[in-house]
Amino acid sequence: MHEIPTREFERRLNELHRVMERRGLSAVYLVSAVNIAYFTGFYYLQTERPLAIVIRSNGDVFFFGPLLERDHVLYQSRLITRTYVYRDYPGETHPMKLFAEWLKELHLDSAVIGYDVAPGYVGYWGYKGPSLTELLPNAKFVSIADEIYAMRVIKSDVEIELLRESAKWANLAHSLLQDYTAPGLYDYEVSLRASLDASVIMKKALGPNYRPLRSEYPAYAGFRGQVGEHGAFPHSISVERPIRVGDVLVTGATADISGYMAELERNLFVGEPPSEVIKYHKIALKLQEAALNALRPGVKASDVDRAVIKAAKELGVYDYLLHHSGHGLGLEAHEAPFLDVGDDTVLRPGMVVTVEPGIYVPKLGGFRHSDTVVIRDDGIEVITYYPRDTESLIVEV
Amino acid sequence: MHEIPTREFERRLNELHRVMERRGLSAVYLVSAVNIAYFTGFYYLQTERPLAIVIRSNGDVFFFGPLLERDHVLYQSRLITRTYVYRDYPGETHPMKLFAEWLKELHLDSAVIGYDVAPGYVGYWGYKGPSLTELLPNAKFVSIADEIYAMRVIKSDVEIELLRESAKWANLAHSLLQDYTAPGLYDYEVSLRASLDASVIMKKALGPNYRPLRSEYPAYAGFRGQVGEHGAFPHSISVERPIRVGDVLVTGATADISGYMAELERNLFVGEPPSEVIKYHKIALKLQEAALNALRPGVKASDVDRAVIKAAKELGVYDYLLHHSGHGLGLEAHEAPFLDVGDDTVLRPGMVVTVEPGIYVPKLGGFRHSDTVVIRDDGIEVITYYPRDTESLIVEV
Repeated sequence: MHEIPTREFERRLNELHRVMERRGLSAVYLVSAVNIAYFTGFYYLQTERPLAIVIRSNGDVFFFGPLLERDHVLYQSRLITRTYVYRDYPGETHPMKLFAEWLKELHLDSAVIGYDVAPGYVGYWGYKGPSLTELLPNAKFVSIADEIYAMRVIKSDVEIELLRESAKWANLAHSLLQDYTAPGLYDYEVSLRASLDASVIMKKALGPNYRPLRSEYPAYAGFRGQVGEHGAFPHSISVERPIRVGDVLVTGATADISGYMAELERNLFVGEPPSEVIKYHKIALKLQEAALNALRPGVKASDVDRAVIKAAKELGVYDYLLHHSGHGLGLEAHEAPFLDVGDDTVLRPGMVVTVEPGIYVPKLGGFRHSDTVVIRDDGIEVITYYPRDTESLIVEV
Repeated sequence: MHEIPTREFERRLNELHRVMERRGLSAVYLVSAVNIAYFTGFYYLQTERPLAIVIRSNGDVFFFGPLLERDHVLYQSRLITRTYVYRDYPGETHPMKLFAEWLKELHLDSAVIGYDVAPGYVGYWGYKGPSLTELLPNAKFVSIADEIYAMRVIKSDVEIELLRESAKWANLAHSLLQDYTAPGLYDYEVSLRASLDASVIMKKALGPNYRPLRSEYPAYAGFRGQVGEHGAFPHSISVERPIRVGDVLVTGATADISGYMAELERNLFVGEPPSEVIKYHKIALKLQEAALNALRPGVKASDVDRAVIKAAKELGVYDYLLHHSGHGLGLEAHEAPFLDVGDDTVLRPGMVVTVEPGIYVPKLGGFRHSDTVVIRDDGIEVITYYPRDTESLIVEV
């Protein structure tokens, strides 16, 4: 399965309407591209051009946005009642003033309206503009960010199925990444080849209706500059040099199934790893085991991170543990909850998190595996399944 | 040239210090990843973890951020006086409270501080937190967004040289894209092959010190789903079907030179185009000519767009003109000024804009070329140079 059935959008909108009823809202005003995709199936490239979806309590769904997205939204979403468009930003009349006029036309200028991010638009690529609170002084804008987040954080069976499908193609992309890795190649050389071949195979398998929602191509695997000593920077982006014999690599792989993208990360070893590398790799595996053992419904997110910290101290690598143990994910690459000592969210069935404690040894590299894990009624389900043991991750040279 | 010399960073910081003097600021607090790159050379993956650079009037540059970026910032920027780090977000003490404490330690808790985006952090991937205005009631935070933008909008000779270098490799990537385009292939199949080969060649040419700053790989060319009838959506992202004989394609190509990325976009025609397609292509070229003819120092950005609108009306395609005529660019893909009827910015030497009026014919496709243009003392310099005529853009089948 790779498409979101109509009933799933109906479920989400029904839940939103219950929030509107509870909070006494006449309408909801959404500007987050991800929230818009969540409720309507429409995804777009966010630019300086303000764009919003207005959902009225009677079920109407309005598009407010630039002319260049009009046909695109109608093509992608069957739910749009009507489109209101301006030519472009900034325009002779500022788009936000038009948004205010359109809300007036919809008799919402003295209504109570829930918003997700801001009652206006977010600063982005040179956007500037007034807030709707200034332009519509009789309307009342209230944040429903927490209510929307509470919906998104518990994944439905459909969403979990999409993430499972994503994990399958992430696994293919990662397998090709390992096959193609060789000393002398640049990391993006391997990455682009693996992403290319995995994407084409995935498309041929999923058939003529499949397309990625948020990404330009279906499947990705790569290193993002996490090569050898640069892998000691957890968020490396690029590296000057090619892959060499002896390098420890940190990978990442995913695939876009209706915008849901599982996270799969592994170490790869270029040639037979020396004992020091094997030692750190086995320690990183133990830390991930500590997290997985602590993870179950009813447990606090913070307790999972505490279990990892305890293990890291016992194993003598606490100084190398440069970040917390994982994060939620779904339509965004990082979402709450965070497996972090500061997040006391109680883990509940349907939550999806990455489990990825990492240790970073200066000059040597990064040691991290990330798996995508669903919290179930009776425990956890790890949906990424690429091999984890040192032997399986060696690239022969 | 592909690196930013130290004197360029000195120039930028000196100009910032003059702003600080003029506005009576003891320090500047930056959170935009692009502004941080502009002043320090450090670029990072923005996440839910708050990160800021604090520049004091005495010249000190402080890093406030997550532990996982500590070694990364020290590796990338020689300018950092000292790093202040927290373990991770949200943490047992919220990072923003630590930022407030660190500002206190730096004797800035009752100072006047200029900020670029927000006196705190921006909502991103589940971030929530207080503003520094609440945490440091005796400090005064004033926006210097406009002053920073005014600096960034006029490109130095160094920046223009970097964009010129970028245009060269964008041209290579685009040439390969055209070479590899063929019916039966998926658009990303062609895109990833062209990006791969152009990236490897570019790296081999620029040598061992070169690496991209903001991108995972050096050069990119692709279609982003702008294939045939889907090209009629100016911001298409993906498409379900392969490229076919008769398709009009819209391309995009760029390359990362220290974070500066020129914009090059063209039509490609799969097989001999029918007369209707040739007609629209020639009209699109005329609209671009109208913009280029109107573009010179001293002219308003809005007047360029008006010249295009006038030409579109004369040529009978105004209904197909779905967006304005171009936008600034630099370290961001879109920046002010906008070549838009609503932007009365007077164009000055050193500004860099794309020139890209586009017409979009439902069911047929998009017709758009984008070139990167520098405003000079005595006119304009078009720094992208891929052929524009119909004949050169035909992919033989």
